[in-house]
Amino acid sequence: MVAPAIRVAPSAANRALNLLRTVQFTHPPNCPCHRNPSYHHQHTPSLMSHVKRHLATPTDPVREKEYAFEMAASSIRFGPGATKEVGMDLANMGAKRVCIVTDPNVTKLDAMKQAIEALTREGIEFTIFDKVRTEPKDSSIKEAIAFAKPYKPDAFLAVGGGSVIDTAKLMNLYNVYPEADFLDFVNAPLGKGRPVDRKLLPLVAVPTTAGTGSETTGTAIFDLVSKKAKTGIAHRNLKPTLGICDPLNTRTMPSAVHAASGLDVLCHSLESWTAIPYNERTPRPTNPINRPAYQGANPISDIFSLEALRSTVKYLPRAVKDPEDTEAQSNMLLAATLAGVGFGNAGVHLCHGMSYPISSQNPGYKHKGYVVDHPIIPHGVSVAVTAPAVFRFTAASNPDRHLAAAEAFGVDISNVKRESAGEVLGNAIAEFLVKLGDQPRGLKDLGFKGADLEGLVEGTIPQQRVLMLAPSLSGELEAERAELRKLLEESLDY
Amino acid sequence: MVAPAIRVAPSAANRALNLLRTVQFTHPPNCPCHRNPSYHHQHTPSLMSHVKRHLATPTDPVREKEYAFEMAASSIRFGPGATKEVGMDLANMGAKRVCIVTDPNVTKLDAMKQAIEALTREGIEFTIFDKVRTEPKDSSIKEAIAFAKPYKPDAFLAVGGGSVIDTAKLMNLYNVYPEADFLDFVNAPLGKGRPVDRKLLPLVAVPTTAGTGSETTGTAIFDLVSKKAKTGIAHRNLKPTLGICDPLNTRTMPSAVHAASGLDVLCHSLESWTAIPYNERTPRPTNPINRPAYQGANPISDIFSLEALRSTVKYLPRAVKDPEDTEAQSNMLLAATLAGVGFGNAGVHLCHGMSYPISSQNPGYKHKGYVVDHPIIPHGVSVAVTAPAVFRFTAASNPDRHLAAAEAFGVDISNVKRESAGEVLGNAIAEFLVKLGDQPRGLKDLGFKGADLEGLVEGTIPQQRVLMLAPSLSGELEAERAELRKLLEESLDY
Repeated sequence: MVAPAIRVAPSAANRALNLLRTVQFTHPPNCPCHRNPSYHHQHTPSLMSHVKRHLATPTDPVREKEYAFEMAASSIRFGPGATKEVGMDLANMGAKRVCIVTDPNVTKLDAMKQAIEALTREGIEFTIFDKVRTEPKDSSIKEAIAFAKPYKPDAFLAVGGGSVIDTAKLMNLYNVYPEADFLDFVNAPLGKGRPVDRKLLPLVAVPTTAGTGSETTGTAIFDLVSKKAKTGIAHRNLKPTLGICDPLNTRTMPSAVHAASGLDVLCHSLESWTAIPYNERTPRPTNPINRPAYQGANPISDIFSLEALRSTVKYLPRAVKDPEDTEAQSNMLLAATLAGVGFGNAGVHLCHGMSYPISSQNPGYKHKGYVVDHPIIPHGVSVAVTAPAVFRFTAASNPDRHLAAAEAFGVDISNVKRESAGEVLGNAIAEFLVKLGDQPRGLKDLGFKGADLEGLVEGTIPQQRVLMLAPSLSGELEAERAELRKLLEESLDY
Repeated sequence: MVAPAIRVAPSAANRALNLLRTVQFTHPPNCPCHRNPSYHHQHTPSLMSHVKRHLATPTDPVREKEYAFEMAASSIRFGPGATKEVGMDLANMGAKRVCIVTDPNVTKLDAMKQAIEALTREGIEFTIFDKVRTEPKDSSIKEAIAFAKPYKPDAFLAVGGGSVIDTAKLMNLYNVYPEADFLDFVNAPLGKGRPVDRKLLPLVAVPTTAGTGSETTGTAIFDLVSKKAKTGIAHRNLKPTLGICDPLNTRTMPSAVHAASGLDVLCHSLESWTAIPYNERTPRPTNPINRPAYQGANPISDIFSLEALRSTVKYLPRAVKDPEDTEAQSNMLLAATLAGVGFGNAGVHLCHGMSYPISSQNPGYKHKGYVVDHPIIPHGVSVAVTAPAVFRFTAASNPDRHLAAAEAFGVDISNVKRESAGEVLGNAIAEFLVKLGDQPRGLKDLGFKGADLEGLVEGTIPQQRVLMLAPSLSGELEAERAELRKLLEESLDY
């Protein structure tokens, strides 16, 4: 944990931590001050003083803004029944011994049946890990890793929702880095943010929900229990080799799961569309392997994010209302993937940042339609509940983008003033949530009280990887606390 | 050469050839009639009779339409100055011995200087092949392959336009398949259309023109001299690992090259946007490795194609007019890449199909602004010259799409009838070409006469890989000849 020592301001801390990552995990010539020995007046005696020196030098090149963006996505195949092809795909990739990753529910579904038949047909050996925990913890992920290691698979196949696909990514990662400490790759500041510089094994992901878009991204999210924080591991080299989006596999989603998953898609697209532009992000990485996947909005992610937003507004209400509406459900699966490419290359910000403590500090709310024996605020619900307040707040950073988003919700923006963009978009989102049905109308409905907000603020602050992409945020720690508190207050009801 | 024997109709020929490919290059269980022994009444004594049997059986599953699409694209990095990062990228990929591929002009440009410095900085060994031929022939590609083999590179770096990147792809391919016959991978019917089923070496592509989009695609185009035909090799596994789009590298393009390259982008986007839908294509491949990259329009390629079209209409005239307009030039580079993802996953059709004989049967035209010592119809010019006639013809297949394209050209379509879609789009394209300046107003301006059209028709017929994606084409060989002749006639002047 380096962060506290240098936490002058979150953005400065981030710069420092990015620099640390660069210095720790790449070759010496990649640090600009090492390239040009005259840059510093003296040799840097330690890593920390080196970092501080960088932070203290106003003309420091690591303070330079980003100048490039990178677009990477898994190959995606989309088609009803395409799950049947997965055996041939794995055979084409040279796989002979596959670790299938799934969870206790999905293992009973047709998607798994199809997958197993497909592997059997090709004569591919496999083992099944079916104990993925919904909303994984570091302990559940370590258990999964420990399962895979002795089997020595030559490929992974994930069949399930985001939790399954994320767990499979990390099984793959630590299988290829058996010597690594778990925290090495965990996002800074909680972990060391080491980049993935080895070639991972082939991973094919078959999503059974239309939400996370995890089949296209290099991100895996989990609870780091010791730090009481939701965090993750994110690097574009973690992305699956191939995502097979088969609309037949999402037919089994109950309506409430459709709704919650779809709200995740909604916020992926809204947040990535409104994230700070990539060329406003600091620092410019000194080695391209350190360019974060969550790099800010850019011209390619924009295309995906806006398209996914339009599609979600159009199809989510239909998919939730009518389980037989295969057109809507198929389009929601596509929208989830498109949004995955969008946020996977741009990032998310405030809704996601605040959602993690909202879910984990749940006062006892159990979402309607979820058949579980414990309280649950589904991820998509915890993300969307702050959305009206968030986009009212962020609109000042880029009113035109917020107006375009409002237009995607069907608002006639021809006579809307730019200064009303936030109000108009916030209202459009609130109206969408209300019409969707069975959604909490704010944190109060989830059981949160004013006294709980402090805990939510403190739970959000460690989410620097997403907060650094939030527009309109001051970037100074105390001011940021106040801004988050205000957003949460305004999210008590809408 | 199997085609003539079974050339009942082009689409049937294609079905047969696709089947041949499937049967030849995949495991026996992938052919549906082999999976189910009762499918045929008797065992098939030879490959040809097997194919004929398939063609003769009305309920044949290989006649089934496609049901899935696949989206694959190289990772793309975009940023002014990003070429400098290429040494670190290759080092991150584990490269120690790189074959740089370029041409005699590009080798003198700053892009190559940056690339060489970047590799040197990382201590990566390299050799340079700088003899890529513009508009490559099979012989020039074989020469390039022969150069690379003894060097035993562990990665390739292409710096140049489409010809350079395409040549580098094939150097990589035949380096990994040293035993293969050159025709094995060439598109059917001229070659055997073998799929790329081995892992190729890392290939980083740094485009110096804004046109081909080759940095994102799995396609390489060349003249197969013995068959007097322009053809190519296309498989998604041929795509570069990373494309580095650095707008500083396209500043050196002369205005005429900007225009011609930009017209290629225009037609990539228009043709992929209007190609037959993926789910109208036959046959459904029996192994996903045989799903062609040119698979027809699909919901993901659509997003790229339409965005690239809008961007080209907006920025190409500015980029051509003002070499100092870096915003326009930068956006054209991005548009070329976006269109590359679009057509790389959907395909092109009539404009590209006819462009190959137009370029190769050039009666002596030398395009203004091209400083070469021989007649030349630049690729983009030969593609665009038939565009007004082509989209008048194809509009009936999907008037709404053609109206949306017209709208992208700035036409107010609110009162246009659907039956006028072709006329309106054709006129919009013609007007765009005229305003762009220095473009031939039809085949006559290129020196073609009525008597030359037969040769152009016969030169187009072998382009089945793109013709099969053409909407509105009858699919019966003699009728298709007449349709092509009419299109070429109507392209004599516009």
